[in-house]
Amino acid sequence: MAAETGKGGAGLSEIQSEIFQAFATYVALLMLKMMVLSYFVISERILKGQFVVREDYEGFGDPQMSKEEIRRKTASRDLYIERIRRCHRNDLENIIPFVLVAVVYILFTNPTTESAILHIRIFAAARIFHTVAYLLPLPQPCRFLAFLVGSLATISMAIRVIYEGNF
Amino acid sequence: MAAETGKGGAGLSEIQSEIFQAFATYVALLMLKMMVLSYFVISERILKGQFVVREDYEGFGDPQMSKEEIRRKTASRDLYIERIRRCHRNDLENIIPFVLVAVVYILFTNPTTESAILHIRIFAAARIFHTVAYLLPLPQPCRFLAFLVGSLATISMAIRVIYEGNF
Amino acid sequence: MAAETGKGGAGLSEIQSEIFQAFATYVALLMLKMMVLSYFVISERILKGQFVVREDYEGFGDPQMSKEEIRRKTASRDLYIERIRRCHRNDLENIIPFVLVAVVYILFTNPTTESAILHIRIFAAARIFHTVAYLLPLPQPCRFLAFLVGSLATISMAIRVIYEGNF
Repeated sequence: MAAETGKGGAGLSEIQSEIFQAFATYVALLMLKMMVLSYFVISERILKGQFVVREDYEGFGDPQMSKEEIRRKTASRDLYIERIRRCHRNDLENIIPFVLVAVVYILFTNPTTESAILHIRIFAAARIFHTVAYLLPLPQPCRFLAFLVGSLATISMAIRVIYEGNF
Repeated sequence: MAAETGKGGAGLSEIQSEIFQAFATYVALLMLKMMVLSYFVISERILKGQFVVREDYEGFGDPQMSKEEIRRKTASRDLYIERIRRCHRNDLENIIPFVLVAVVYILFTNPTTESAILHIRIFAAARIFHTVAYLLPLPQPCRFLAFLVGSLATISMAIRVIYEGNF
Repeated sequence: MAAETGKGGAGLSEIQSEIFQAFATYVALLMLKMMVLSYFVISERILKGQFVVREDYEGFGDPQMSKEEIRRKTASRDLYIERIRRCHRNDLENIIPFVLVAVVYILFTNPTTESAILHIRIFAAARIFHTVAYLLPLPQPCRFLAFLVGSLATISMAIRVIYEGNF
């Protein structure tokens, strides 16, 4: 570990503690943002009566629906619900790797507070804008640029870790 | 970091070590529970001869199947396999954020052992019940309540982190 | 925590620091490998003009396309793009749990450097081979064995954590 305390073990340097303190808040914020999409899908499904498994129609849908209607409705897809689900999946594919890469970047490459916080803030802003661009939706290339900026922040940190790393 | 040791670096307090020791076991348990779903999908696919890519039909399916049959079978969907896959995706969307939020919650908000372990146990119980409710399936709102309880445990921790946090 | 420094707090032992240093590089590498799949999907979509939401056709597709054509093209699926997306999802389902389980395994079971690094290297090799086997594709059971080996590395670590754990 980069920040050895020199006593045979390793702790965090003051700079790392400072970075992690801000990082923690962004992690909580981004996870919350991502989880809100689950609730958005649920509320859309209930409002539109559009579910994907039988027991959801029985529990939340119109009790008069015939089996045939349920089968037809399950096979169809609501475009906006699929859009929220895609947004959610894109978050999973981008935010989780960001968090894991950021942790090893902060611990093992000894970044300055400024550099680390900059990566974290740019990523968070890009992903919040990505969600807005996906759900409104904004015309392309808004969503693409949001994805690109967030992705490059993570890649920049990952490359730094690999560059200083040993296999 | 909340648990500064006061020597310029930061270590874990005894309480945090105690919490993390229990947390570690639940992380391993929940990941194992989630990964078992991969094997469940694989065994269902082989038993039903229902795959999604050509080389799977060639390697695991009936060798006499015509190209036309393979195309038709790939386009169709087995409802129960899709159900397991949805259960697995729901786990990804909920368990991974829980683990990441719990780490920053334990490290940066100085929770009591009781409060932290309670959050972790409630979440684990809710997610195990969620899997049972999805796969049997149990009538709604069983699965919805399981999702809700697990989700609220994570949100409760995330809000605590944000409340004490700095941007 | 297994590696108590005996001063009321807990730090990392020298062995753990050594393991984490190598682990960090593999985390960055595996995340990078996973994220490259996003760019692969994007480039395939642009090359084939096959998108899933309306604004992508307007921003990146043929501007002369009629609404009817867009609707038809959105409903159809490109088999190779779906294959890359499945590969990406399989990575999410396997690599993220590996990283989280490996962290608690290194911190709480006091593995030897050899044993820990072996788990990490086997997993990384298996997942890189899995991606190659999925995207070329190689005949089965190549992809299945790659999944199996990676999955067993994670399960082996998880069981070790649970075995030594307390609830």
